Amino acid sequence: MDKRKVILDCDPGHDDAISIIIAASGRSPLVILGVTTVAGNVEVEKNTVNALKICELLELDVPVYQGASGPMVKPSEIATEIHGDTGMDGPVLPEPVKTKEAQHAVDFIIASIRSSKEKVTLVPTGPLTNIALALIKAPDIKNNIEEIVLMGGGTFGNWTPAAEFNIYVDAEAAKVVFESGVPLAMFGLDVTHQVMADKDIRQRFSRLEGEIAIFVNELLEFFGRAYKDHFGFEGGPIHDACTTMYLLEPDLFDMKHVNVSIETKGEFTYGMTAVDLLGTTGLELNTLFAESVDQEKFWNLFEEILISYEEG
Amino acid sequence: MDKRKVILDCDPGHDDAISIIIAASGRSPLVILGVTTVAGNVEVEKNTVNALKICELLELDVPVYQGASGPMVKPSEIATEIHGDTGMDGPVLPEPVKTKEAQHAVDFIIASIRSSKEKVTLVPTGPLTNIALALIKAPDIKNNIEEIVLMGGGTFGNWTPAAEFNIYVDAEAAKVVFESGVPLAMFGLDVTHQVMADKDIRQRFSRLEGEIAIFVNELLEFFGRAYKDHFGFEGGPIHDACTTMYLLEPDLFDMKHVNVSIETKGEFTYGMTAVDLLGTTGLELNTLFAESVDQEKFWNLFEEILISYEEG
Amino acid sequence: MDKRKVILDCDPGHDDAISIIIAASGRSPLVILGVTTVAGNVEVEKNTVNALKICELLELDVPVYQGASGPMVKPSEIATEIHGDTGMDGPVLPEPVKTKEAQHAVDFIIASIRSSKEKVTLVPTGPLTNIALALIKAPDIKNNIEEIVLMGGGTFGNWTPAAEFNIYVDAEAAKVVFESGVPLAMFGLDVTHQVMADKDIRQRFSRLEGEIAIFVNELLEFFGRAYKDHFGFEGGPIHDACTTMYLLEPDLFDMKHVNVSIETKGEFTYGMTAVDLLGTTGLELNTLFAESVDQEKFWNLFEEILISYEEG
Amino acid sequence: MDKRKVILDCDPGHDDAISIIIAASGRSPLVILGVTTVAGNVEVEKNTVNALKICELLELDVPVYQGASGPMVKPSEIATEIHGDTGMDGPVLPEPVKTKEAQHAVDFIIASIRSSKEKVTLVPTGPLTNIALALIKAPDIKNNIEEIVLMGGGTFGNWTPAAEFNIYVDAEAAKVVFESGVPLAMFGLDVTHQVMADKDIRQRFSRLEGEIAIFVNELLEFFGRAYKDHFGFEGGPIHDACTTMYLLEPDLFDMKHVNVSIETKGEFTYGMTAVDLLGTTGLELNTLFAESVDQEKFWNLFEEILISYEEG
Repeated sequence: MDKRKVILDCDPGHDDAISIIIAASGRSPLVILGVTTVAGNVEVEKNTVNALKICELLELDVPVYQGASGPMVKPSEIATEIHGDTGMDGPVLPEPVKTKEAQHAVDFIIASIRSSKEKVTLVPTGPLTNIALALIKAPDIKNNIEEIVLMGGGTFGNWTPAAEFNIYVDAEAAKVVFESGVPLAMFGLDVTHQVMADKDIRQRFSRLEGEIAIFVNELLEFFGRAYKDHFGFEGGPIHDACTTMYLLEPDLFDMKHVNVSIETKGEFTYGMTAVDLLGTTGLELNTLFAESVDQEKFWNLFEEILISYEEG
Repeated sequence: MDKRKVILDCDPGHDDAISIIIAASGRSPLVILGVTTVAGNVEVEKNTVNALKICELLELDVPVYQGASGPMVKPSEIATEIHGDTGMDGPVLPEPVKTKEAQHAVDFIIASIRSSKEKVTLVPTGPLTNIALALIKAPDIKNNIEEIVLMGGGTFGNWTPAAEFNIYVDAEAAKVVFESGVPLAMFGLDVTHQVMADKDIRQRFSRLEGEIAIFVNELLEFFGRAYKDHFGFEGGPIHDACTTMYLLEPDLFDMKHVNVSIETKGEFTYGMTAVDLLGTTGLELNTLFAESVDQEKFWNLFEEILISYEEG
Repeated sequence: MDKRKVILDCDPGHDDAISIIIAASGRSPLVILGVTTVAGNVEVEKNTVNALKICELLELDVPVYQGASGPMVKPSEIATEIHGDTGMDGPVLPEPVKTKEAQHAVDFIIASIRSSKEKVTLVPTGPLTNIALALIKAPDIKNNIEEIVLMGGGTFGNWTPAAEFNIYVDAEAAKVVFESGVPLAMFGLDVTHQVMADKDIRQRFSRLEGEIAIFVNELLEFFGRAYKDHFGFEGGPIHDACTTMYLLEPDLFDMKHVNVSIETKGEFTYGMTAVDLLGTTGLELNTLFAESVDQEKFWNLFEEILISYEEG
Repeated sequence: MDKRKVILDCDPGHDDAISIIIAASGRSPLVILGVTTVAGNVEVEKNTVNALKICELLELDVPVYQGASGPMVKPSEIATEIHGDTGMDGPVLPEPVKTKEAQHAVDFIIASIRSSKEKVTLVPTGPLTNIALALIKAPDIKNNIEEIVLMGGGTFGNWTPAAEFNIYVDAEAAKVVFESGVPLAMFGLDVTHQVMADKDIRQRFSRLEGEIAIFVNELLEFFGRAYKDHFGFEGGPIHDACTTMYLLEPDLFDMKHVNVSIETKGEFTYGMTAVDLLGTTGLELNTLFAESVDQEKFWNLFEEILISYEEG
């Protein structure tokens, strides 16, 4: 198989960082065209700094573009209670020397899809604002997008009873993406809560050496504490990592072809992804929905990836 | 403990029938003031006939009152694909000699609550139209209701991706009930899907003798096939039975005190019960929500109940 | 023409009072079966007392029934800034000797429609809660309702930019009524703002003698001041009077057959009556909508009515 | 007064064309930085061609930029029944030699506002998609926008009972604009229906000579017939012209400072501009709303403008 061209659209973010580590690893069959940032976990400027730091740490030589500073229609929302003030609290990385590009993320996404000979895969792990804006501004790019592999939503919520954070932050953007006709693979809370970095997992990886493994351990440490404090969970689910793990090894996941519709009108359900698992709506099958993951294989592969960094 | 006075408000309905069987059994600490019917699984007239038939079969000498013939605000919806044309297809019972009372169910509910020395418990296992209309017409009854123990809703849906049938049929009524301030115990799909009468369960009960057990087996047979055909399930969840089992043996269930809000505005989520399990909304704790059931004990108790009828 | 049987469903209320005066006058071809009250301008108990007072003042020997104490689904709303603490501030009438009936207004409405040989006309001049509850509880009555002649709504609002008070208070009830299939004549703000009792009108009627005329003058005095203070209007529009004036003299009004749909989902438009004057929706023509009134003839007829009381 | 820098954002469109004619006239104190087009009356490509044709006709040497090809979130809607297949049926203009610029309209708007020493005024006379996208992509431009002078909305609708076409087409975009905090002057149907080019007006202008006057007469002829056929009006209201007439002569209009909120959730009211004329909402005064226009002065000024072209 040829290498897949991807753009990582993110708001790093602990689990975004891990997602990038996976994508950039020696095990990865992906060509990263660029990293784009969006307001989400924290303000977009902070997310951009974090993205630059991660690239430097990984010696990942790809351009970083800053995108939307807030949702399309509704006011901003951030999640410092989960990710800390910097948006990636825990590990301390040096201030980046690398700088972001001048071009806006949305324009980079449009231009790189238009100019690519092969179709491009988008991997959004934050709110879908940049992706939606690109689709609105340049509907022609739909034909050259291979797939949008995203973290967001689920049959239940974490930010409200019905909505997951990424979709809740910009449900109008999500609606644009889910109704775009572009093939979608969706990793929502149903599956991401199956990859929780609990005490056992954290202990297992704490034995690994090398700069990247240590960075990951520090991320998981902080993230786990935040999930414990805020949600009472035994660890932090590394949500965003599912997207790039899927691109490395699709067979880890059970996927079901279903309709997913985005609620933008509800009083108590704004930002819900209504996942039609029972097929009761008769609506178009627009999404490959991840129902479950083989946890053992997932963590094994993840360990391999971390070890691959160690070995250089 | 004194016997609890209850009104069974239902749309029988296979699982409603089982719920009544439980409430009327020798094991039951309940005094049934009356059975009231509501449009739901099928038209209210059919539900009334079914209720009368069940009372005759059980030699249950309580009055039956017919209630609302459709939802408060939106058009009707019925579920013949699950319950058959009669609303209780499968077993064949003789036409009832017993007749319904002349009074409207809503007025019976109001009058019996007003005139009762002890507080009354309402047990709705269909759409909440009758209960809501009683609360709207006579808000004073709130003070003499012990609890509303209902089957409906869940963190996921069966009629739509977000909504369970009973709540979907009349979400405005549900909103009235959940915002009434009356103590609520809610048995939604999260727990009712844990009491699925699958092949093993059906085989186990098929060994029992006696008229009631045979009736139940015939109900489960038809209901199981319908769930298999329509949803691909391995058996029919006897949803409504959870309410009366809870009244017989509360300890079977893990209950959590949470806020439940009813969605009436959503485009894809009308009729959702937004269950705030993570406490993210800050809204008032208005509902005891059933999270899980001890399945072994549940079926054991149910077997005891069926045997108690046999022993008569 | 035979006399039309009517039920006056109201929340008196200055303009409700005037509406009753018109219906009860010697000039009126109406047989008033009863007066029913509903929560609206103020609490239902106060509205009932006011209805009783008005009946006594007019020596109108019809039964008064108290109805719903609040809207069906949403919380109550009252308008003491317009009608004062009693709901009919201004004139001082003696405490009524007459008492309300024991039966609930909704049950009276149902029973009297069911038992009437001729079709009955309903004249709601408050929120539509009672009418909706009657239609929900007894859908069979639809066939014996001649027409519902109501004050409410308009192409613009007074309680919010989009909604008039009566409809805003209980939009779900309004939705039930407007979707009921019963013939409707609607007098909304478009026409009621054309019958404003401004200074000239008040001066004209101040010359009349007799108890009823004096009562009306005191009503208009208080009401006019309230409209001046609250809305900056030059007088109070005697909204509700349009309904009974129409029943006395339909030709006063220009009526247009249109679709009217009730908004219950909007964020800024809850309770709007969307009046399809241009026919752009293609929806069913369910309402005779009053576009305008011949003001000169209206006030002349009103003067005649007041004088008829004087003459006894 | 210094000349005001404006960008004309439009979907020409008969009345858009007239608006441009006014802005480009010798009487005008405006510096037109550019004309930007948006999907609206017809597809954006056709609107762009029309804009180019108008510029050539007027010998108006400003760049034309093409913008959004559809609304942000909901599907497209067009109005060929009013504007014909070309979007500007009636007069026949030569195919333009002039071509559109390569830059996207949204980027031109952002760049020209950012680079302007004086604040820039935006004059949108179509759906607000371009303006919203610019505000979302570059929130910093808010500080250098003098005012947004727009045609759209009203206290009543023309595309639905509650919504005017421009706002209905992209209510989410309108919400972004009305909540942006940028000063707004809004010309809705309340005032634009006061400038109807009826038979008398058309006759009056038919006496004028010169290429531009003839073009305008042809526009009014077609537009008037379309309004007659579709709405039963006696002429076409030259809606969009109000914006530029206001910029030439603000005193023609009575403006009121009010809150305007955009309905995006309603079932029957999507795209309504809820104009708080009575001040009942307590919401922020975000809009100068045009209540009325001095019709005589309006048409006199318009005649002057047409004559000024003749005199060249």
